[in-house]
Amino acid sequence: MKKIAVLGTGMVGNTIGTKLINLGYEVKMGSRTANNEKALAWVNANGANASAGTFTDAAAFGEIIFNCTKGDASLNVFKMAGIENFNGKTIIDIANPLDFSHGMPPSLIPSLSNTNSLGEEIQKLLPEANVVKTLNIVNCEVMVDAKKSGGDPTMFVSGNNAEAKEEAKEILKQFNWTDIIDLGDITTARGTEMLLPIWLRTWMATGNGYFAFKIVQ
Amino acid sequence: MKKIAVLGTGMVGNTIGTKLINLGYEVKMGSRTANNEKALAWVNANGANASAGTFTDAAAFGEIIFNCTKGDASLNVFKMAGIENFNGKTIIDIANPLDFSHGMPPSLIPSLSNTNSLGEEIQKLLPEANVVKTLNIVNCEVMVDAKKSGGDPTMFVSGNNAEAKEEAKEILKQFNWTDIIDLGDITTARGTEMLLPIWLRTWMATGNGYFAFKIVQ
Repeated sequence: MKKIAVLGTGMVGNTIGTKLINLGYEVKMGSRTANNEKALAWVNANGANASAGTFTDAAAFGEIIFNCTKGDASLNVFKMAGIENFNGKTIIDIANPLDFSHGMPPSLIPSLSNTNSLGEEIQKLLPEANVVKTLNIVNCEVMVDAKKSGGDPTMFVSGNNAEAKEEAKEILKQFNWTDIIDLGDITTARGTEMLLPIWLRTWMATGNGYFAFKIVQ
Repeated sequence: MKKIAVLGTGMVGNTIGTKLINLGYEVKMGSRTANNEKALAWVNANGANASAGTFTDAAAFGEIIFNCTKGDASLNVFKMAGIENFNGKTIIDIANPLDFSHGMPPSLIPSLSNTNSLGEEIQKLLPEANVVKTLNIVNCEVMVDAKKSGGDPTMFVSGNNAEAKEEAKEILKQFNWTDIIDLGDITTARGTEMLLPIWLRTWMATGNGYFAFKIVQ
């Protein structure tokens, strides 16, 4: 099994990292400092396959890297980790370019939406890596178990490299996603990132965050 | 049954108008000129309950008005029709603010997306009317028969006026939509209009335009 790095120590990184440990992967959680309290608590809770370090440590360790950082910080995190540490690797980008500057609910960062996307900007920053945008359209508990939506929803993948998308799909299947649509190259991440506003409005209208989208066809 | 106006003579206006005639409504199709060839052909094909006229004629006739014009033309059409002709009426806005200036697939018009929407701008232009955004997230044949998606998909409604939304929902039910989510006020149209990019990318990836979105919860 490939070694996996999880960038980010928030609820999303914690949930993804824990699920991967439970699936038998070795996982290193990366953060700004080597002694991040949340990362160390996660390591203590998750046994011998769990470790932590700086973003650079994690990026160097991982053969597959999950981007679980906040969308407005992601590009800086990749720079801090060292661009060369991602060369030839699969980046599973689950972040969204949310803009909280106009209050709640957030909109999308204008320069990273509509005619651009966070997924594309990460791919431009890491030209030797293979970015796959996926999982960004549900809450983190549904990400790691599609059945928590109560049905058999659809997950999308976007990316320029077919092998990297296959690698991502293998992990998606272990997260109980069975209906997976390959949208095409990384520019199609515009479409999935633009699902965030309807996700937020549906959550606000129904009071239930354990839902997902299904393409009925 | 209330009289209905359909603004626009394209494929969407034609399909919506014909379905409403088949349901027993009196329908007037509006266009820039009183003698629009496509409108007259539609009248000839649809019997005594079908009529045509200018945008102003149609707006004055209709108690419910469907906006089936192209999104980049919609605001001008409402101005041409006379703002006062919409006072107190329900506007069912099914248009999308598509921007073809960057090539295919279209993006959204920046000033009408993310922190704004076409639905909101129509409501601002027609302060005495009740705008309901709905149906804009599927192709026009699925709009008038949800079952053409092959399942039981979700339709959203957005609008400031509860009675107008009920009126829209009554028509949606006649179009075979059974799973309807009321997202809230007209600002929630931002979310449904931002579904267009994923609609376009899914269509391009699957080659099938007869699909719809289902909220699995």
